[in-house]
Amino acid sequence: MMTPGFVVGEAETMIEVIPIGYVRGGREKARDDYWAREQASIELDGEQFATDALAGLEQFSHAEVVFHFHKMDQTKIVSTARHPRNNCDWPEIGIFSQRGRARPNRIGVTVCAIVAINRLWLSVRGLDAIDGTPVLDIKPYLNGFAPRGTVREPDWAREIMADYW
Amino acid sequence: MMTPGFVVGEAETMIEVIPIGYVRGGREKARDDYWAREQASIELDGEQFATDALAGLEQFSHAEVVFHFHKMDQTKIVSTARHPRNNCDWPEIGIFSQRGRARPNRIGVTVCAIVAINRLWLSVRGLDAIDGTPVLDIKPYLNGFAPRGTVREPDWAREIMADYW
Repeated sequence: MMTPGFVVGEAETMIEVIPIGYVRGGREKARDDYWAREQASIELDGEQFATDALAGLEQFSHAEVVFHFHKMDQTKIVSTARHPRNNCDWPEIGIFSQRGRARPNRIGVTVCAIVAINRLWLSVRGLDAIDGTPVLDIKPYLNGFAPRGTVREPDWAREIMADYW
Repeated sequence: MMTPGFVVGEAETMIEVIPIGYVRGGREKARDDYWAREQASIELDGEQFATDALAGLEQFSHAEVVFHFHKMDQTKIVSTARHPRNNCDWPEIGIFSQRGRARPNRIGVTVCAIVAINRLWLSVRGLDAIDGTPVLDIKPYLNGFAPRGTVREPDWAREIMADYW
């Protein structure tokens, strides 16, 4: 069945991605808060990449890491509206209005501090991904990619982040 | 062949993702600069999502969009060091030290302004993705996910962004 508006081939088109590397170290299990001091490394796949894949990244203070919430049980992904962290003090909202792990495609995106780079190893601080997490991409954080214009967010978004880092 | 350090099953593990929707409108072809005023919409897949998937997103000024550079020819992906935009004024750096499209997994991440939400349609401004781009995720932009600490970047990163928006 096609969705109105979708052209042939668009619905349910699968895209295949291959981890560029994996998170090494850091937490063994996901926990909601206190990620700021977590240190971990990302080991790039030496079969895919030469040792210059991270060259020049040391000029940046921060990297944006795109990763896969691989431990999130796919059967628990809820796409209908729910309370963030199931906390009824916060509004019932859609999955694309929150950043929780139980989301379609299970993709996480986090900006973390670069600690050190050694050939195919990138050491970071404040990456909210557990040991063994597949990494899909690493990008340098450029000021030019910060939000343009004033950022507005609801009260719950501030409250949920109070102890996150 | 396994990479030293990689455990069995890690190398070349494929992850399948399915577009949650597609970009409608905006540019037909990619161009490097002047994206700020581009308006486009993201149409969510009505087969996958109920109309509350975006509920609550109107409380945010900005959304982070994860998308797939589907028009980027996979054979042109270069993972060895190169000059951003092939401009020799800028240093030769690894693919994970730049944000260009010719990258492994062809994943883009951009924060854009929310213009309007109408059921499964999200209208945005300043999304640097062309008409028909598969969208893999939408997240609200929370101030709490901005970089912690001072951001440092090389001169070329400022220069490359001079006319981007």
